[in-house]
Amino acid sequence: MPRSRILVLGAGNFGSCLADHLADSEHDVFMWSREADLVQFFNEHHKNPSYLKDHDFPPNIRAIGPALPEAEFIKSVDVLLFAIPTEGVRSTLTQLRPRLDEKDLPLLIFVNKGIEISTNALTLEIVADTCGKDIARVATFISGPSFAKEVVRRQPTMVSVASLSNSHAERASQVFHQPWFRCYTGNDPIGIELAGALKNVYAIATGIADGLGYENNTRASLITRGLSEMTRIGTAYGANPLTFLSLAGVGDLFMTCSSPTSRNYTVGYRLGKGETLEEIMRTLGSVAEGVTTAKGLKAVVDALGVPAPIANSVYEVLYEGKDVAERAQSLMELPPLRELELPTQVGEPVRSLMKKLGLDG
Amino acid sequence: MPRSRILVLGAGNFGSCLADHLADSEHDVFMWSREADLVQFFNEHHKNPSYLKDHDFPPNIRAIGPALPEAEFIKSVDVLLFAIPTEGVRSTLTQLRPRLDEKDLPLLIFVNKGIEISTNALTLEIVADTCGKDIARVATFISGPSFAKEVVRRQPTMVSVASLSNSHAERASQVFHQPWFRCYTGNDPIGIELAGALKNVYAIATGIADGLGYENNTRASLITRGLSEMTRIGTAYGANPLTFLSLAGVGDLFMTCSSPTSRNYTVGYRLGKGETLEEIMRTLGSVAEGVTTAKGLKAVVDALGVPAPIANSVYEVLYEGKDVAERAQSLMELPPLRELELPTQVGEPVRSLMKKLGLDG
Repeated sequence: MPRSRILVLGAGNFGSCLADHLADSEHDVFMWSREADLVQFFNEHHKNPSYLKDHDFPPNIRAIGPALPEAEFIKSVDVLLFAIPTEGVRSTLTQLRPRLDEKDLPLLIFVNKGIEISTNALTLEIVADTCGKDIARVATFISGPSFAKEVVRRQPTMVSVASLSNSHAERASQVFHQPWFRCYTGNDPIGIELAGALKNVYAIATGIADGLGYENNTRASLITRGLSEMTRIGTAYGANPLTFLSLAGVGDLFMTCSSPTSRNYTVGYRLGKGETLEEIMRTLGSVAEGVTTAKGLKAVVDALGVPAPIANSVYEVLYEGKDVAERAQSLMELPPLRELELPTQVGEPVRSLMKKLGLDG
Repeated sequence: MPRSRILVLGAGNFGSCLADHLADSEHDVFMWSREADLVQFFNEHHKNPSYLKDHDFPPNIRAIGPALPEAEFIKSVDVLLFAIPTEGVRSTLTQLRPRLDEKDLPLLIFVNKGIEISTNALTLEIVADTCGKDIARVATFISGPSFAKEVVRRQPTMVSVASLSNSHAERASQVFHQPWFRCYTGNDPIGIELAGALKNVYAIATGIADGLGYENNTRASLITRGLSEMTRIGTAYGANPLTFLSLAGVGDLFMTCSSPTSRNYTVGYRLGKGETLEEIMRTLGSVAEGVTTAKGLKAVVDALGVPAPIANSVYEVLYEGKDVAERAQSLMELPPLRELELPTQVGEPVRSLMKKLGLDG
């Protein structure tokens, strides 16, 4: 594998652990942060003052910032890894776009998850809006069950690597793949993105059920019906239903729903125990993505006209003050259903996006 | 819902809990056991001396046996629920066949899981062999994440209900469905059966990984890759890949792999901790189905020519004395792969079975 020059944008929990993994794989790694203090501290101590605090990072990661690197530096890297929150992607890409060399484009890899709040757009669409279709067509997404604290201890981790361009997914896999960080490539980035965003809503639902005192049968069933609902929404959107069987789909869903340390699961668990959302948000210290995604998802589901009783129930509990136990009871009292009824026509959102990308021919 | 007269064949853990559920739903329930002592004890005390020992069964379950009921009785029931081990299905059906009224067939529902050892046949094929195609075409299968001890406490439980005949799956759903026992119907009984059998092999693999000390990332990834492998094998066999997203598929897999009380998981865990299979089998007290299924699955996988590195590794550990840590390392060192590559042609085993059922036209 050729050694790459990689710029990781973002020095949060996940960006740091990926920088660590890549440097350990003997790439040349730069990690950009907009916090001057973090940059200085990191370069002096090889520790991140805010995340994975006990971890010693390898000396071949150089922190840079707080200014976004200039065109000359951007043009010198082989890989741009975006590990910033979804809400920051549009502005960062807008700033970066003029600094990219279109004739020698670096590999653009995104690991953020979630739907942009004001537009309900996925990251692929943000890339198309800010950088144009040629760049969006080769954008690559990495997602899967990967706690940062386990990645830095080289616990075997496996991820989905997806791009509309198979060759770019392969290139990203070559950069990241190691026996302890296995990459599985695919060509449905939209399904991968949807799975990564939606799973947080179902983690809230699973937390609620656990908080209400339901046991193993209910928990496994709810995760399965959540997966089925995600698959139905994804298919109506235009993704491939099988993508929900991926590491970014079922894998990340399992892990998020099984982990008492997941913020989304915790929000649900405490709701199930009778706390109000206000109390929980005040004491949680950080935002749980699923709370935001539940709102965006409601708009998407309504526009698609697809049945999503679990996601709608989470929305009603979070935003309409509905009682959790009453909502759980209502779900159980729905009439019997066929399992896995999927929409038969290709979803409108993907059709529009493919048109935007010039891939509707 | 009309009240049904139901004969549950088998008074084991799962048969008992389903008899309990059905009697609680105000059906007339008979439960057959080949153990005279159990029949007498159950009718006197409304308790099962061998399973769910603390549970008080409702008085409207009548135990019968030890002889298999005569034709007159069999003809009087609306539902025959088979809750006997797969190895006993062929002989029981052979005895029962002459007692069935073809013109007024009861609903035949099967809840056993596993592959018949000597033939590698699924239950649907056993039904076809012993009862003919007309009966096999309406046989119905129920499977899903359902610990018996939770079912008798009315913990919300959800199951897949599958038959080649949609109307028979609907009828079974009507018999079983309650808010606390939700039924989801489908028409891929072969996929449902394969998922139920194969999951035990992947539960052994997950137990091994946990026993070796791997953590959350590895666990979620291994379950996902196991599901992907099950889906690939199932599709090569001729099942619908989406069936593996069902309650009988991912739901039961998730529960079995997450439960330290699952025998299959325990076998794997103790193998991971360094015990030999002989030691484990000697002290476990009961057979773990996955140990047997791993052997049958090896034959099926070899015949299909489909890649199944996880199942093959379990087989090598169980039957060829391979070292668990070395096998785990080898799996990690496989080259990077595409995610979810599925065979494109309809599987030969299902083609043959459909021919046997006269459904190949």
